[in-house]
Amino acid sequence: MEAEFVRWLRDRLPQNPAWPLGISDDAALFTLTDRSRLVVTTDLLTEGVDFQLSRDDPRLIGRKALATNLSDLAAMAAEPLAAFVSLALPRAGTGTQSALELAKLLYSGLLPQAAEFGVALPGGDTNTYDGPLVISVTALGTVAARGPLTRSGGLPGDKLLVTGALGGSILGHSFNFTPRVHEALLLHERYELHAGMDISDGLALDLSRLAAESGCGAVIQTDRVPISDAARELAHRESAGDVAQASLRHALGDGEDFELLLAVPPAAADAILREGSVACGISCVGELIEEQGLWQQFGEKRTPLEPIGWQH
Amino acid sequence: MEAEFVRWLRDRLPQNPAWPLGISDDAALFTLTDRSRLVVTTDLLTEGVDFQLSRDDPRLIGRKALATNLSDLAAMAAEPLAAFVSLALPRAGTGTQSALELAKLLYSGLLPQAAEFGVALPGGDTNTYDGPLVISVTALGTVAARGPLTRSGGLPGDKLLVTGALGGSILGHSFNFTPRVHEALLLHERYELHAGMDISDGLALDLSRLAAESGCGAVIQTDRVPISDAARELAHRESAGDVAQASLRHALGDGEDFELLLAVPPAAADAILREGSVACGISCVGELIEEQGLWQQFGEKRTPLEPIGWQH
Repeated sequence: MEAEFVRWLRDRLPQNPAWPLGISDDAALFTLTDRSRLVVTTDLLTEGVDFQLSRDDPRLIGRKALATNLSDLAAMAAEPLAAFVSLALPRAGTGTQSALELAKLLYSGLLPQAAEFGVALPGGDTNTYDGPLVISVTALGTVAARGPLTRSGGLPGDKLLVTGALGGSILGHSFNFTPRVHEALLLHERYELHAGMDISDGLALDLSRLAAESGCGAVIQTDRVPISDAARELAHRESAGDVAQASLRHALGDGEDFELLLAVPPAAADAILREGSVACGISCVGELIEEQGLWQQFGEKRTPLEPIGWQH
Repeated sequence: MEAEFVRWLRDRLPQNPAWPLGISDDAALFTLTDRSRLVVTTDLLTEGVDFQLSRDDPRLIGRKALATNLSDLAAMAAEPLAAFVSLALPRAGTGTQSALELAKLLYSGLLPQAAEFGVALPGGDTNTYDGPLVISVTALGTVAARGPLTRSGGLPGDKLLVTGALGGSILGHSFNFTPRVHEALLLHERYELHAGMDISDGLALDLSRLAAESGCGAVIQTDRVPISDAARELAHRESAGDVAQASLRHALGDGEDFELLLAVPPAAADAILREGSVACGISCVGELIEEQGLWQQFGEKRTPLEPIGWQH
């Protein structure tokens, strides 16, 4: 529903030169002065969709609510500044915790991460009502001297780099991931990056978006995709057919990796891979190409790749 | 519950010199550069508490979600810049409208007001889930050359001015009010204002807050409080005892007036009242005093006034 709604909304929003990116990128960019540019992102998490109180620790839920927003800031190479947290808490609590206890647990997970990334929490809104838990976080960041990293700057020939390993986030990573803020700031400062985003809906789907915004196609070298242990574990559990293929499919299509996807000119990509300055690991998984569409390549064989991933 | 939670949270938040106001004011203030100061406010509205879909037009609900945030910006004399709207929509819609139709109706009420106040809508998040409608809005504004209007600058002897008329918002005003953005900007630019806020929880309660933040007491001249027609109408309907007293009680204690309350040095207050530059009307209702506490005065008689209002 969200995609249809955003199309409807896009036609009705006034054009505004102060917000040049419109509503397509990971976050909104705003120029306050010549020297100062602000990035704003917002993410709303709901019970039953993004978490389940009957299953998930409220501290991890609170942590995740902030971390998804920090990942959006990382996607634009913005330095986190502040976050505004709004809670709609079930009036009766969870059965075992009161609404107040639940609020404290959510913040107990969120506060250490805010401290770790230097995020101030100068405001918010805390409410109770007769409904399930809803958490809305709006995060602000500032853009480095180089300007923001966007999805639209990629060029044919750019190497595609991804941090960490992909797939299987449902086994735990979707709650305990580290947003790649430090990695994004470091890479954006030291190297020439053409485009970037965070992988939240699956590598294949998100790459198809980055390529489209850059006016390019993209090819993934399937044997170079960093597959997480969790993706392999899921493939083993399913144990239907080819485990290697199933693992790859998880790495390409599972949501909530929250890793970085970068389009980088070849010389800079070589330097990044050679200098090993990214502690979480970084891999080259393919490149942007002139021919439109999404492709997969294994050896010499190039075939179309479906943009699998989490469709909202 | 919110008050208790905010106390708990306040002790756990890191001190941050970039956010000098902490979490007590209407909005958070942030210094980006010497020339540029940003104000951020966030407000979350829930079904059953702030609105009822079975009773209220979704367009008015959408309008209100933005308007309450604009009122918070007005409270600090900040010029609206942008708002980020996050929706948690009931998956099945309302019974008569689908979730998508509901989202469109909410925005159909919100968009004209955004246009009227020059508010960009560069981002947001739209979700469906199995729960009631929740709307979270975070609004950004910039502070005029004079700096922000805060609650803490009032001095004994300051006149207390309020815009419009108070009470009875439940009869309609709570949904169709005009946030006093233009009035706040005009008054803050032309006159010396010491302190200000918007009246969202009732004049008596909100004035007690402003006085406490300013380290003063306050006295209300009860015969000078501008009583709305709706407050009188409510008092008539209740028709138990003294209608004039009941009207006054509505004007002092009803929530959601969203009018401005200002503490203004006497000479500036006289000029404001004399020059009549505020089209919605503005009245002097009392003054700040050295003696702590909230007082009411009728003729020569001064008695304590309970800080009645909407306690969250």
